[in-house]
Amino acid sequence: MDTAPSLRAFYIANNRNFVRQPTTIMEINPGPLLKTIGSPDDLKKLSREELQQLSDELRQYIIDIVSVHGGHFGASLGVVELTVALHYVYQTPYDQLVWDVGHQAYGHKILTGRRESFISNRKYQGISGFPKRGESPYDSFGVGHSSTSISAALGMALAAKHKGEKNRKSVAIIGDGAMTAGIAFEGMNHAGVADTDLLIILNDNCMSIDPNVGAMKEYLTDITTSQTYNKLKDDIWKALGKLPVGKQFSREMASKIEHSIKSFVSKSSNLFETLKLRYFGPIDGHNLTKLVDTLNDLKNIPGPKLLHIITTKGKGYALAEKDQTKWHAPGLFDKITGEIYKKRFETPQPPKYQDVFGHTIIELAEKNDRIFGITPAMPSGSSLKFMMDRMPDRAIDVGICEQHAVTLSAGMATQGLKVFCNIYSSFMQRAYDQVVHDVAIQNLPVIFCLDRAGLVGEDGPTHHGAYDLAYMRCIPNMIVSAPMNESELRNLMYTAQLDTTTSPFVIRYPRGEGVMPVWKTEMQEIKIGTGRRLREGEEIAILTIGHPGNFAATAIRELRTYGLNPGHYDLRFVKPLDEALLHEIMQRYPRILTVEDGTVLGGFGSAVLEFMARNNYRNQIQLLGIPDVIVEHGSLKELHQECHYDSTAIAACVREIMKDSIRVSLHQ
Amino acid sequence: MDTAPSLRAFYIANNRNFVRQPTTIMEINPGPLLKTIGSPDDLKKLSREELQQLSDELRQYIIDIVSVHGGHFGASLGVVELTVALHYVYQTPYDQLVWDVGHQAYGHKILTGRRESFISNRKYQGISGFPKRGESPYDSFGVGHSSTSISAALGMALAAKHKGEKNRKSVAIIGDGAMTAGIAFEGMNHAGVADTDLLIILNDNCMSIDPNVGAMKEYLTDITTSQTYNKLKDDIWKALGKLPVGKQFSREMASKIEHSIKSFVSKSSNLFETLKLRYFGPIDGHNLTKLVDTLNDLKNIPGPKLLHIITTKGKGYALAEKDQTKWHAPGLFDKITGEIYKKRFETPQPPKYQDVFGHTIIELAEKNDRIFGITPAMPSGSSLKFMMDRMPDRAIDVGICEQHAVTLSAGMATQGLKVFCNIYSSFMQRAYDQVVHDVAIQNLPVIFCLDRAGLVGEDGPTHHGAYDLAYMRCIPNMIVSAPMNESELRNLMYTAQLDTTTSPFVIRYPRGEGVMPVWKTEMQEIKIGTGRRLREGEEIAILTIGHPGNFAATAIRELRTYGLNPGHYDLRFVKPLDEALLHEIMQRYPRILTVEDGTVLGGFGSAVLEFMARNNYRNQIQLLGIPDVIVEHGSLKELHQECHYDSTAIAACVREIMKDSIRVSLHQ
Repeated sequence: MDTAPSLRAFYIANNRNFVRQPTTIMEINPGPLLKTIGSPDDLKKLSREELQQLSDELRQYIIDIVSVHGGHFGASLGVVELTVALHYVYQTPYDQLVWDVGHQAYGHKILTGRRESFISNRKYQGISGFPKRGESPYDSFGVGHSSTSISAALGMALAAKHKGEKNRKSVAIIGDGAMTAGIAFEGMNHAGVADTDLLIILNDNCMSIDPNVGAMKEYLTDITTSQTYNKLKDDIWKALGKLPVGKQFSREMASKIEHSIKSFVSKSSNLFETLKLRYFGPIDGHNLTKLVDTLNDLKNIPGPKLLHIITTKGKGYALAEKDQTKWHAPGLFDKITGEIYKKRFETPQPPKYQDVFGHTIIELAEKNDRIFGITPAMPSGSSLKFMMDRMPDRAIDVGICEQHAVTLSAGMATQGLKVFCNIYSSFMQRAYDQVVHDVAIQNLPVIFCLDRAGLVGEDGPTHHGAYDLAYMRCIPNMIVSAPMNESELRNLMYTAQLDTTTSPFVIRYPRGEGVMPVWKTEMQEIKIGTGRRLREGEEIAILTIGHPGNFAATAIRELRTYGLNPGHYDLRFVKPLDEALLHEIMQRYPRILTVEDGTVLGGFGSAVLEFMARNNYRNQIQLLGIPDVIVEHGSLKELHQECHYDSTAIAACVREIMKDSIRVSLHQ
Repeated sequence: MDTAPSLRAFYIANNRNFVRQPTTIMEINPGPLLKTIGSPDDLKKLSREELQQLSDELRQYIIDIVSVHGGHFGASLGVVELTVALHYVYQTPYDQLVWDVGHQAYGHKILTGRRESFISNRKYQGISGFPKRGESPYDSFGVGHSSTSISAALGMALAAKHKGEKNRKSVAIIGDGAMTAGIAFEGMNHAGVADTDLLIILNDNCMSIDPNVGAMKEYLTDITTSQTYNKLKDDIWKALGKLPVGKQFSREMASKIEHSIKSFVSKSSNLFETLKLRYFGPIDGHNLTKLVDTLNDLKNIPGPKLLHIITTKGKGYALAEKDQTKWHAPGLFDKITGEIYKKRFETPQPPKYQDVFGHTIIELAEKNDRIFGITPAMPSGSSLKFMMDRMPDRAIDVGICEQHAVTLSAGMATQGLKVFCNIYSSFMQRAYDQVVHDVAIQNLPVIFCLDRAGLVGEDGPTHHGAYDLAYMRCIPNMIVSAPMNESELRNLMYTAQLDTTTSPFVIRYPRGEGVMPVWKTEMQEIKIGTGRRLREGEEIAILTIGHPGNFAATAIRELRTYGLNPGHYDLRFVKPLDEALLHEIMQRYPRILTVEDGTVLGGFGSAVLEFMARNNYRNQIQLLGIPDVIVEHGSLKELHQECHYDSTAIAACVREIMKDSIRVSLHQ
């Protein structure tokens, strides 16, 4: 059946849980038109003239909400007109929109039944900051990491073709930054030869979170600014304009258009044309009329095609247009003055781990000429930008290209360079083969700083760095470490770049603030594979890796008030394990508790279990960490609590274990 | 210092172990010129006229050796002239050649000091079938998986620039098949804007192992066959020819050439030009004179550039030219008649797991209209080609694009299709993020058939599927299974495609033959997460996953002759674990041995340890599997023995454990 099934049927068929509407609503009121839009069906009742007003109201609503409740900002403002045009022209959710990365989908969410619940955006148990299949039938594909949209939408288009749904459309909306990732290219390479009705909309704003980089970006600038090129495109548009378009448009007529376009375009083949995608544009992505007309035309042109639109990130909010990186996700702000609220403290606060990394790599690089820094499109997020400003030849942003970042680092390491390759833990999943194949097998001493390791909070499941300890630990030659505080991070970075360190070295640390207001400690070498005894105790030892060591320390202070006296050991290295220390611990304490900010399947705790099996230790042991479920979004505090490894949980767990042990003693 | 360091210094500096020369040499004699080539220095003494003779001798030597000793065949024959030309023109190993994938590097190995040891190619403790840094200073970068060469060579070029080695060259040699992988595109996107002296040689033979597919392949065919285009390129070559080239060539002059070329090329920009790589070619890759002249010219043109050469895979061996897939790695053959030797047996032999997959998916697809098959460039290797022949609309080769293959499968799964996405275990590392982000987080029931899981034999470290159990098991929602035999594989495939299976489903199986001559058993559903008790025993239980269950069965037969009576359990699922069965086992047997064809860090054995910790079991347990080292190449038999989990090792291990237990009893 080739018609849109009812939403109700969809809900039932998919048995989805939808986010509850909040019972109290803040005093943010949508504009008069926006107020009437319960779903895209309402949108379709508007006249073409009303669409611009709706866009303005939608933009204002996003500004109103994000300024008070936080969230991503610039990306969604940039695609307001596109969002309205897409839902106006396409039969969503039957036609399927795949929003690449997804933090530009706020307008989409607001227009598809989530206007009121939007104040719960990114909050614990609220709606997700990204499209999410479980949340709405309009969210055709869950996103968060970039550049997946072409492949996903092509999969949908191939399925529609197989099922004979001839009029069902699939649209991928992807930014120019996301276009640099390999998977986007792989998707185009297939899309160009797969005979499906796929439309790729290239939303070109010259930005990722930071300014986009690389050859393709320069190319897009070329074709956008070239007068000759645009003249040619105008000719094509004129040719298109002369042809009748509409629902009754036949394949035969489409084929004629195709031929007409080909004869023009072949004169100046472009990147996308070489990949057999018909190229249209560039057009102004803020011109609603032009967008609606163009999308309507394209609906009737068969085969794989790409529409290039030019937008401004932060459009409609002057400050955001001006400083797009700062306003990517600015936090709370005064929407009138543009003042971004910052917490003020009377005493010095601990720095972000990111900034510790950013400043420390410069300190090290000033003394060691062979140090380089590499980031795939996260100079601001990782704070490598400090080094890029100070030492532009030695700190490189390679764009959204994690795979290339790792193999490039490996190539540099063969020449004796000490490369700090800084990648968010969850993004490192994209370069896993390169870590195994190009770095570990060759035992090249590349240094991987895995930022945002462990739970990340509001960005949710796609961004949690939950698996790195497990997926790194199983690779031979890897050194895998995590600092408990800023000073330890500095010491690990110092150790990693020494000439005596001859294997790949992972340092994983969490998003956000550390614990040391005075963090700029003198750097010292840490012997690889050595942990620390923080506290000798009795009966039970808590073994931690990384920042949850601080949770354990707090828990121990509480436990002492109950007369309990746990030992505390910061292992520092998941690999190699400090076997001498572990022997000491196993022989001293009958009960063991491990704590990690990572999955309990195959991670740090499992490494301890393997040590015990190898050495025939039979201590009682319990593992705390991220459980084997997809953890949703929320504040770090909420999530650590939910996952049961914050200080309260650790204390409760120790008391439970010790209670059992007392009960056991009584029975004996 | 900007000159080539002595080889001796290099050896010492890198402390490398070189492969020993075999003491007895087979009666295969290199030709008279080839015999004189101990290193590329000897090659450089030859006249230009002698180079073709050397190429012929090199080609013959490869045919002579591979026909008798086995190995990859077609790829190396195709680049004989290129190999000779590169080592003639470049100052290797100071200048650095990175051979993409690497199975075309036989000629390179023979010319760089490994002519005599070449008969040990791919054999246990012999030289590797791929370039390998530990083997020779001429092997600048270890390869095996495709498409890493551009990134690696760019890393070397950036390092050379940083170190002021102005005349040091980096060259990546990459096939058109490898060009479809995302990382190659990521590398070009960076190379185009990085001001380094990088040359990419695109070796275009229209093939991966199977014929290349996708839009880029069609594009390359276009530019190769287009007369207009070639006319234009000829003009450029003429322009080049008029300019003086040589060592004294100045930057200023280079800039003039650049300008001259640009004015021509901009008339018909091509894919590589859009990525800011200067494009040269296409030229005949078997014309030695032209190759040498061109490479000499290009040495003097600064900046990133790409040379497109056209070659024939299998060149010089008629049968291999004709059927390139068959002759990619044909096994042993009669070089005169072209007869490929096959073992002949009097009784029916077990099939390859690959063929069981290939035939079974057709059986299932004939009954279930929603089944699709996806392979990233391995239709022959995976045997999906059977389905591609039979149901061309439902079995797709997407090219070397593992990332795209997985996300495409996810997109299709959102539409209710049942996709068998077949990827070699070690190649799946390339799509790890897509498995987590696009499949597991959304809990889409994609079926991953991980072929070549576990040790793979002669292909060695880059191809061992050692980590999949560990890296898949730690992801929520995943079902992870491994069949012990052909019938189990069929049952798992059957179960995976049922509508009642609503989560992603991994089936991992090894390279090569199974154990059931009569394998076409009727398919039955396996309840997900249930193992099998194969044999009840006493005192010790052997828990296996996948095909090593057969090693255990053999070991148990031997152990019974010693009066030992181990139980044997085939768990079938690493996730979810059969907890009921495990409780039964833990309560019955004080001693446990786990066996897996995967790393013992975080794999199946660790899953059992975690179960024990959760349930407070204190049984004595030992884990057998791939140890935490890079396992080199050799036959499967040799490697299973080396890694100590073949039947002999299992039997020895059980006897050791039981001996200890007897000793313990005596002491008590």
